[in-house]
This record gives sequence, C-alpha cells and structure tokens, in this order.
Amino acid sequence: MNGIRIREVKEGIISQNDITAAGIRSHLAEKHIFFVNVMGSPGCGKTTFLKRTVEALAGKAGIGVMEADVDSDTDAVLMEKTGADVIQLHTGGACHMDAHMTKEGLNELGDEFDIIFLENVGNLVCPAEFDVGAHLSVMILGIPEGDDKPLKYPLMFKTSDVLIINKTDAGEAFDFNEELFRERVLSLNPDIRIFSLSAKTGAGFDGWMSFIKEKYEDYRA
Amino acid sequence: MNGIRIREVKEGIISQNDITAAGIRSHLAEKHIFFVNVMGSPGCGKTTFLKRTVEALAGKAGIGVMEADVDSDTDAVLMEKTGADVIQLHTGGACHMDAHMTKEGLNELGDEFDIIFLENVGNLVCPAEFDVGAHLSVMILGIPEGDDKPLKYPLMFKTSDVLIINKTDAGEAFDFNEELFRERVLSLNPDIRIFSLSAKTGAGFDGWMSFIKEKYEDYRA
Repeated sequence: MNGIRIREVKEGIISQNDITAAGIRSHLAEKHIFFVNVMGSPGCGKTTFLKRTVEALAGKAGIGVMEADVDSDTDAVLMEKTGADVIQLHTGGACHMDAHMTKEGLNELGDEFDIIFLENVGNLVCPAEFDVGAHLSVMILGIPEGDDKPLKYPLMFKTSDVLIINKTDAGEAFDFNEELFRERVLSLNPDIRIFSLSAKTGAGFDGWMSFIKEKYEDYRA
Repeated sequence: MNGIRIREVKEGIISQNDITAAGIRSHLAEKHIFFVNVMGSPGCGKTTFLKRTVEALAGKAGIGVMEADVDSDTDAVLMEKTGADVIQLHTGGACHMDAHMTKEGLNELGDEFDIIFLENVGNLVCPAEFDVGAHLSVMILGIPEGDDKPLKYPLMFKTSDVLIINKTDAGEAFDFNEELFRERVLSLNPDIRIFSLSAKTGAGFDGWMSFIKEKYEDYRA
C-alpha cells in the first residue's frame, strides 16, 4: 500500500464480566424481559432514536429505560417524557457500561417490564468490548461521522446485531458514500441488519419498528 | 428538577502515567519541540482539521504527526499527503492514548521536528483522563454532535486548552444553540479558547492559525 510506519501500542484489556452478563441474560429470559443495548458515538442520536422507538411501542409493551452517562441526567429527563420508566446511571468516569454496572442498574430499575433498553455511554470503542447481557445489540452511526468508521472502529460493527444509519435528513451536507459504507460494514459482519433513517424526522423508521417488534415477538414466543 | 432516580455505578480508574507524561513534556522542551494533543469524538473532524493545519504550517515549521487509532491506517494515509512525517499508532483495542504509548510513538517518530501533533483515538471520555505530555490540548466538537455535550462529557471540556467548534458549514441542518453551548463550556472552563470554523471549507480557520502560531512562537521564545 504505502510507506506508513505502523507501531502496535496495545494495552491489555482484561474483562471478567462474561459470567455476569450470561447471568443477566438468563435471569431476564426467565422473566420474559427483552433487553436491548443501544450504542454509538457521542451525538450519533441515541436518545432521539430511543425516544421515537419507545413512543412507537407505547401501549403495546411496558418499557424500562436505563440511561448511562458519565455525568448529568439530560437524557433521562428527555426520555421520561415518553412515559417510560427511566433510570439514569452514572458511570463516574467510565467510558462504557459493563455487566456489573448493568446488573446494578437493572436491580434498581426493577423487572416489571416487557422490554428494557440500555442507552450506553457515547463511545464507539469500549462498549463493544463489554457484554452487558443484552438479547439484541444495536449500534447507531450518524452520517456526519463519515463512511470510514468501520475501518477505524471495527469491533463495534462486528459485535452489533443491528446498525442504524442515522441523520439521513442531513445527509446531503456530508460526503458520505452509503454504498461503500455498507460494503465495509458487511465485510466485517455479513449478518448485521442495517436500517437507514432519520430519528429526528421519522423518515425510514417503519423498517426498524417492524424489525424490533418481530424480534420481541420471536423472543416471547 | 424532576423525579429521575440516579444511581452511581462508578468504576475506579487508576492512572500512573503522570510521571511519564511530565518526562515527555520536559524532554520535548529540551528539544524545543511543541507537542499538541488533538481529541474529539469519532467523526468530529480531527483528521480534516489537522490536515488543513499542517498544510498551513508547511514551509514554516517541520511537522511530525502521530495518528492513533484502534485499527487501520486510514488517517495516516490521508495525512501523509500533506508532506508531514507521519506515523500510525495502533492502540490494540484501547480507547485512548496514555503517556507510555505516546512515548513509544515519539521514540519511533524521532525528534527532528518543530511541532508534533497527536491525533488521539476518537473518544470524548478517556483521552481527557490521560496526560500524554502535550504542551497544548485541543478538543474538537462537530455541530452535529449537539450542544448538550458539555453536560454529558464535562472532563474533556475542563481539561482542554482549546475548543474547536467544527462543521459550521453544515450548521443549519442541526438544532445547535452555539450561545448556550459556549455558556455551558465556559462555566466548566472559563479559560478555554474557542474557535468556530469549518475544517472542510476553511471558513473561520484564520483565527485558529494565528493562535497556534502565536502559541508556538511563545513556546520557542
């Protein structure tokens, strides 16, 4: 390719949280609760996406939401307007949720729900490394972030079940090659389901809503 | 405010890298090298911003660039076109650069430079926690990320010397209240220097270039 020098400066990352995550998953399965982990960069539109999703599910399912942030309750305040039961989790500096933190959050939230959503910390790296016991992992990428992100943050694309390409309403302002982007994503993860939509305007949202309802019904069946 | 329940799920973060960072800073000072750490979310425009900065400095200073990413050499390939000496650093999963990794990178890059830029891993959380020995810390926030980010990621805004509000060219497509945003930032960090610009079009870039040249000259004086 070229003359770029590459130096590996790998830092060891040790995670002991898989057992806890498996415990969460089976506990929620016993309670027939479907648990969805939503990830993506700061500002990719996680909260707007979740708000619209929860509003569309209102009356059809009992919804609990855990909003994870380093600080503030901005997202929880917004989310509470949907009528869902919401808890704000503070990670105290940590850039991701792990299974232990998730378990604490779930204990606090309670289990009188059909579906629980976790809005993870805004970060395209570490949340992908920590299984939180979810039944479905959803990642969001906003078009302004660029079509090169699968090259630079491959693990998130590899480990997610669903990819939401968000902010299609603002797409024209950016050089985003969706065809190339989809190719890059599918070469990392051929099974990922991709939806292009605008969480802000609602355009393209139907496909995602049909999918999540179907997944939920399959899970409960 | 409201009835939101907040649960602290703090994870201890221990860093022993301050001594290494101080060593880097003094070593580079002996060599009269000015070291700038550039941080921000994935897709905030770090590479485009750095490319334009390096191009504007061409012929006036010898420039070295360290591109840090979890994977790929996308940014290094782009950056090499500026004529700067570029090295790609792979963090092997780590979501930030620490002082030890930075020292490795600097050793590899060499010290025949006037200015060295580090493009940190795209992340608004952890890079703010790790002193890498830089003389100037610059953070970038793209308008599409939203004006609420100082509330949710305060440490990055607190620890940066300079804030670049980027993507002003696409600003109209987003509900971004710049006045409110600046108020939120300045309440966290009254000394931060803020520049609004478009790294893509170059609009507003002059103020930043005057600032960095002045900082560099002060440092060398």
